[in-house]
Amino acid sequence: MRARDVTKDAGCALGSLYNAYEDLDLLILAVNSRTLARLHMSLQDASASKEAPEEKLLALALAYLEFGTENPNLWAALFDHRMPPGVPVPEWHLEEHAGLIAEVMHPLSQLSPGLDDATLGLRARTVFSAVHGIVKLSLEGRFVALDTDAVRTELSGFVQQFLRGYQADKQY
Amino acid sequence: MRARDVTKDAGCALGSLYNAYEDLDLLILAVNSRTLARLHMSLQDASASKEAPEEKLLALALAYLEFGTENPNLWAALFDHRMPPGVPVPEWHLEEHAGLIAEVMHPLSQLSPGLDDATLGLRARTVFSAVHGIVKLSLEGRFVALDTDAVRTELSGFVQQFLRGYQADKQY
Repeated sequence: MRARDVTKDAGCALGSLYNAYEDLDLLILAVNSRTLARLHMSLQDASASKEAPEEKLLALALAYLEFGTENPNLWAALFDHRMPPGVPVPEWHLEEHAGLIAEVMHPLSQLSPGLDDATLGLRARTVFSAVHGIVKLSLEGRFVALDTDAVRTELSGFVQQFLRGYQADKQY
Repeated sequence: MRARDVTKDAGCALGSLYNAYEDLDLLILAVNSRTLARLHMSLQDASASKEAPEEKLLALALAYLEFGTENPNLWAALFDHRMPPGVPVPEWHLEEHAGLIAEVMHPLSQLSPGLDDATLGLRARTVFSAVHGIVKLSLEGRFVALDTDAVRTELSGFVQQFLRGYQADKQY
């Protein structure tokens, strides 16, 4: 992405961009911050619409897929953007990402009430990453084109099978 | 990545690179092809070392994590490289990726013998993507640094819980 293309599309002078944002990475972070807020709200709505923790987790996964399907470019910017080598992602942006994980922690803590906070956070991140992986490879259509309904069915089936594992006696 | 940096590190002339590879993308694909062959062999060994399909799937997931952990740069090149806009990934390379999925299809077909080939392929891709997501977000240390043992424990627990879902009566 070049600053010149951004300002051309926005119909403003190149200098205006750099008056507002120190560099292109900070502009992308600002966009990603708005995307995260919207995604977070979608996830909160999905979770709040259900009662049981299993239903909340499934609703979260499907809302995540839906958001990515409807906003493919914003989604790509959110997860594919890299800061320049040696430049860390700012703390405030990391905290925004942590907000997504917190949505997953809540129902997981109901399914595994014995977990301490650190393990619960790791567990939520793991579940999040698995769902993220399924959604991402589908959205990218990287190695095969998949239709949305098929992905939705697969994602539901996968999450439900994972959740059925909680019914077995040995919990992890 | 610039061609000049590659040839400087390799100690050869810039022209030599372009005699061997038409462009940098084809060079990266050639590297990725070798990485895929090695990864595929690791997965085959892991799967062959176990008898039960559940054990094979867990061994595949852990071998995948181990390969990524030991070869972070090759792994990144394999999954982060994008062809230029409008240029498709060559068919021969897609088929190499499909070889990884085939390793997952085999034990899955034993767990769900009733699936037709198309559904089995989709199922294998879904399971692969979930494991990939867990390994990738961990390797990148994107939003939090995780130590390898913790990731290994989480990945094992996640896969085992998913597999316990097969014990429940309603299979997907």
